[in-house]
Amino acid sequence: MRKDNRENNELRNINMITGYLMHPAGSVLIEFGKTRVICSVTVADEVPHWMRAQNIKGGWLTAEYQLLPSSTGDRVRRERKGVSGRTQEIQRLIGRSLRAACDLEKIPGKTIYIDCDVIDADGGTRCASISGAMTALRIAAKKLLKEGKIKENPIITDVAAVSVGILDNEAVLDLCYEEDSNAEVDMNVIMTAENEFVEVQGTAEARTFSRKQMDKMLDLAVKGNKEILEIQKKEII
Amino acid sequence: MRKDNRENNELRNINMITGYLMHPAGSVLIEFGKTRVICSVTVADEVPHWMRAQNIKGGWLTAEYQLLPSSTGDRVRRERKGVSGRTQEIQRLIGRSLRAACDLEKIPGKTIYIDCDVIDADGGTRCASISGAMTALRIAAKKLLKEGKIKENPIITDVAAVSVGILDNEAVLDLCYEEDSNAEVDMNVIMTAENEFVEVQGTAEARTFSRKQMDKMLDLAVKGNKEILEIQKKEII
Amino acid sequence: MRKDNRENNELRNINMITGYLMHPAGSVLIEFGKTRVICSVTVADEVPHWMRAQNIKGGWLTAEYQLLPSSTGDRVRRERKGVSGRTQEIQRLIGRSLRAACDLEKIPGKTIYIDCDVIDADGGTRCASISGAMTALRIAAKKLLKEGKIKENPIITDVAAVSVGILDNEAVLDLCYEEDSNAEVDMNVIMTAENEFVEVQGTAEARTFSRKQMDKMLDLAVKGNKEILEIQKKEII
Amino acid sequence: MRKDNRENNELRNINMITGYLMHPAGSVLIEFGKTRVICSVTVADEVPHWMRAQNIKGGWLTAEYQLLPSSTGDRVRRERKGVSGRTQEIQRLIGRSLRAACDLEKIPGKTIYIDCDVIDADGGTRCASISGAMTALRIAAKKLLKEGKIKENPIITDVAAVSVGILDNEAVLDLCYEEDSNAEVDMNVIMTAENEFVEVQGTAEARTFSRKQMDKMLDLAVKGNKEILEIQKKEII
Amino acid sequence: MRKDNRENNELRNINMITGYLMHPAGSVLIEFGKTRVICSVTVADEVPHWMRAQNIKGGWLTAEYQLLPSSTGDRVRRERKGVSGRTQEIQRLIGRSLRAACDLEKIPGKTIYIDCDVIDADGGTRCASISGAMTALRIAAKKLLKEGKIKENPIITDVAAVSVGILDNEAVLDLCYEEDSNAEVDMNVIMTAENEFVEVQGTAEARTFSRKQMDKMLDLAVKGNKEILEIQKKEII
Amino acid sequence: MRKDNRENNELRNINMITGYLMHPAGSVLIEFGKTRVICSVTVADEVPHWMRAQNIKGGWLTAEYQLLPSSTGDRVRRERKGVSGRTQEIQRLIGRSLRAACDLEKIPGKTIYIDCDVIDADGGTRCASISGAMTALRIAAKKLLKEGKIKENPIITDVAAVSVGILDNEAVLDLCYEEDSNAEVDMNVIMTAENEFVEVQGTAEARTFSRKQMDKMLDLAVKGNKEILEIQKKEII
Repeated sequence: MRKDNRENNELRNINMITGYLMHPAGSVLIEFGKTRVICSVTVADEVPHWMRAQNIKGGWLTAEYQLLPSSTGDRVRRERKGVSGRTQEIQRLIGRSLRAACDLEKIPGKTIYIDCDVIDADGGTRCASISGAMTALRIAAKKLLKEGKIKENPIITDVAAVSVGILDNEAVLDLCYEEDSNAEVDMNVIMTAENEFVEVQGTAEARTFSRKQMDKMLDLAVKGNKEILEIQKKEII
Repeated sequence: MRKDNRENNELRNINMITGYLMHPAGSVLIEFGKTRVICSVTVADEVPHWMRAQNIKGGWLTAEYQLLPSSTGDRVRRERKGVSGRTQEIQRLIGRSLRAACDLEKIPGKTIYIDCDVIDADGGTRCASISGAMTALRIAAKKLLKEGKIKENPIITDVAAVSVGILDNEAVLDLCYEEDSNAEVDMNVIMTAENEFVEVQGTAEARTFSRKQMDKMLDLAVKGNKEILEIQKKEII
Repeated sequence: MRKDNRENNELRNINMITGYLMHPAGSVLIEFGKTRVICSVTVADEVPHWMRAQNIKGGWLTAEYQLLPSSTGDRVRRERKGVSGRTQEIQRLIGRSLRAACDLEKIPGKTIYIDCDVIDADGGTRCASISGAMTALRIAAKKLLKEGKIKENPIITDVAAVSVGILDNEAVLDLCYEEDSNAEVDMNVIMTAENEFVEVQGTAEARTFSRKQMDKMLDLAVKGNKEILEIQKKEII
Repeated sequence: MRKDNRENNELRNINMITGYLMHPAGSVLIEFGKTRVICSVTVADEVPHWMRAQNIKGGWLTAEYQLLPSSTGDRVRRERKGVSGRTQEIQRLIGRSLRAACDLEKIPGKTIYIDCDVIDADGGTRCASISGAMTALRIAAKKLLKEGKIKENPIITDVAAVSVGILDNEAVLDLCYEEDSNAEVDMNVIMTAENEFVEVQGTAEARTFSRKQMDKMLDLAVKGNKEILEIQKKEII
Repeated sequence: MRKDNRENNELRNINMITGYLMHPAGSVLIEFGKTRVICSVTVADEVPHWMRAQNIKGGWLTAEYQLLPSSTGDRVRRERKGVSGRTQEIQRLIGRSLRAACDLEKIPGKTIYIDCDVIDADGGTRCASISGAMTALRIAAKKLLKEGKIKENPIITDVAAVSVGILDNEAVLDLCYEEDSNAEVDMNVIMTAENEFVEVQGTAEARTFSRKQMDKMLDLAVKGNKEILEIQKKEII
Repeated sequence: MRKDNRENNELRNINMITGYLMHPAGSVLIEFGKTRVICSVTVADEVPHWMRAQNIKGGWLTAEYQLLPSSTGDRVRRERKGVSGRTQEIQRLIGRSLRAACDLEKIPGKTIYIDCDVIDADGGTRCASISGAMTALRIAAKKLLKEGKIKENPIITDVAAVSVGILDNEAVLDLCYEEDSNAEVDMNVIMTAENEFVEVQGTAEARTFSRKQMDKMLDLAVKGNKEILEIQKKEII
């Protein structure tokens, strides 16, 4: 049993408030336990420079991620003179994950912007971001189709993300900040509604890990992502 | 009568949710009509380099302001390679205004960070930021005193801020975004609980303004700020 | 009586050397007492990116301001890795003020650059910059019209700027550096030849200020700006 | 059979020239097929600012990675105004991997710098970097111990890295650039001499992947890394 | 005979206004024909980081150079996001040249700042800067000695600088902008009062140059620098 | 006799490995004694922005230079947030020197990129870079002509570069790092195959230099460059 009385294979409480913001096409305030992230989706009539330069058809999807300064225990500095390696890695991961859910050839000439702004951080912010952004994207696509701003729905599957790890030599699901700080291994797993993997990123923090541990963590991740996909489904009916 | 049925001398609905965030010493989600800003206050055991270099006693208070990308009608870019003139002006104004409410010699060696993150922008974001930050600061001071993290309460008065303007040749109070876009003159007025001015910043947008118009705008600002100070008072009892 | 024997409502000596530089269309070396600023005006066949992007007709006017490193008592660093908030605020103020003197639709496709380089700083540099730049702009417009480089004169009024403040509880006009450092309140007022306000920016430095003090400062500013407008008029005949 | 006549589970030719550079404590020119990377190791008497600030004992190890402009088919720009997300990710990965091979408490007050400069890129540059840097680190540690510049050898195990992927629906080992460009899935696996995992980073490029494919890729990676560890061992005798 | 009626071996009119600025220890407005540069000298109680790090005794001298935006025919952009290669080269040259005139061990713990701000550019700005800065430095040293701010005079010789070039196949002295633009070869020569060389920087612009041409240019430079050294001498008596 | 047994007028061993890299059109690993530089040449179908803006015909050639971090005795930092004045000066010198060897009107619309990456630094890196880049350029031109990627050979002469200096009051050729560190004067001379000068850059390091010393240094440079031009000739047959 964990400090917060969860089983090792149990997710924290996951909640979403959809339509949280006034302006964007889709938005969600997602909670993974005490972690809270505002995910929003906007669409612009433009594609990145490199797509035009290489004459690539279709559209694009990109993501930005930010910890608000007061989202963490010690105030974190705003990244106003360049973005840290950690932030870069996370927003690249969010972007790749959501692109795996889309066929961007269906929105030629358009860029989807995913913004994930963490207002309270208690572990798992990147997974909450991806899982919340997926739902915001579903909402946005529906609205933009209705308004005629896109002709086809670019979404071809759903994605969800969850963290797993090895803590005190046991595999655990969906680590909160305190668990994450003490974990020997930390792994983020992003999956589709078809139970296929989009990303697997496992890192030895304090100790390296065996093939057996790897397998156990993957088992937990599959279970967790299935549950998150169920929660997402309820929000977008 | 205005489009939203307000009188010229009428504020929008102003609401606050205090304790909105998990980590910071004080936090408020403030609403000025549809404008929503997360204001938070954290304290660090440090003073700016220039204070140490000049051997200045006492503490410091500084502010940062940000529009979230999806807080506006068209997505606004994150300021990750340097901050725009507009953002600089606003956060300098917030900082000066809150410093006017404090005697920083009472918190030697400490810096108060004010963070104002706009999640929905509908005009008046800098005034909402100042008014909300004041309440977050009251909450933080109480908590920090109780925890012994500061010895004295640095707060010596309260400040509130409101915008006024000239729209269709009439002075109006607390402009929403649409009014602000069409206003001939735009003025932000920051005042103390003693009805003294902290800042007056009036700008001719589409037309210059007469002394008489100046006077009318100041009258409205005084009225508006008194009402905001009342609202703040209720939150911190 | 002030340290430099001026009455509270008295300006410092104001002088201008027109045609101070070899290349620009208009240039002025303006002196407000010991403060000296080189103001110059050049015109380029271009408009900012955002005007083209939004397909806005007409021309543009923008301003840049700089303290030379040796213009102040302690050498000030050059701003070579980004511009400070103070500099940003001042050059935005100069730009807005001069734009209020112009109808930029009369110079389609052109940008007027105002450069204000302070060579000696003794208080009031932003007001000297605005007042000098107005005269440099008059000179430039005349020359450019004559040379056929612009078709219409964009200038529709004149603007002047002066600082006022509360020092030892009294309202004073046109503060030098030493006065400014000790002032309780500092206010910059920009006005047109028609006695209308363009900008009013008042800041409580050491103490907040009452409505009565506000009124007195505005009175002084009106008087000072009228006198500066007279001095400008003489230079451009 | 692959285009270059390798079996799916076969590495490219791996060679190392040790002592390639004149100055650093350890250096290796490593070749993974046509990919060539200069790996070097230097040690400095300093630790990062954040370690001093948090009063953390021990030493540190950090890595930098660069593609030389002419190392790729189209000349790649130097990263002189900030480093791309890709470069950040790779050098963070190299750093974490080599730190997993060390007990940095054994070199208090010192920082090990790993520099990986790719002179010819043909796929797998990050894995070649890690595998070559490990050997350069072994050489450097020996030399520094001998010279008395470090008191204890910080190395506690060896690490090797290899890429695996899914290409035309088959799992393949050690992809060259052309294979990598066409792969459906791309995974980098870093392991220790004890066959434990340090990092597993798998990404769906063109298609998501099943649990079965994941397992096959891990099998290949284990085989490849064992062989690389053997090659490293020969170089450092 | 040249366009401006000078002989090939003739300098332009060289004038200096000393004490041109209010604050710095020494300042000069120098004119080389129509070229005008404000040179100023300030001293600070600090030495660069690298001197402290390497525990180097003595003081330092550094130089900064800037073209004001309106100093040239087409307005030149301010270098606010980093300094161009040209500016870097020039200010490094100014610094080296003035350091050659000083024994900086005589001013331990102090840094001399040379600021050269070009207000009108008509060729030869770097040579005017060096020649004017030398005189400003003489003035500053005198003043600082008198005020007891330095204990010893660091100046051990005088330096002067002049440009020479090959124009229409003839060697010419002190080129104005138009000549410089058309010159085949451009050379800057910095010399001491003892007729020794400090720097020789010759560049083939449109055509390479022979040893004979090199010799002729050096002859002219020696003549020109002797004359400039005479002019400097008169100013500092 | 020098420490390394060379006569004062003797070059170090100079070697080149041509075709050192896989991708670029031309590449050379050049050695000047222990100094080693990778020089490469690539061509792109583009010209700089300023050429298009000014509608200048023809092509362009530009150069970049870098010390690898481990190329020097103490590890040198990567220039990732802007390039130092020293690097700027060197790469501008390389660019000017190679442009003197070309008639760029013969390659309209194209830019030649010269990349010089120093892997071992032992003095004379800029001269080795220029001398090696010349040969890499010859190789690239041949290859590009053959492949039809350029229509005409832009090369009109060859350039070579060598350093000379005054060490212990004697003129010496091709200084290694230790000599360079102790030299009183340091001069770099770039020449063509016709024995004409392209650049002469002499700097007094510890002592100023006489006309006689200048002449002796030029004599040595002429001798050294002739020998380097011979070595280059052998490589490109």
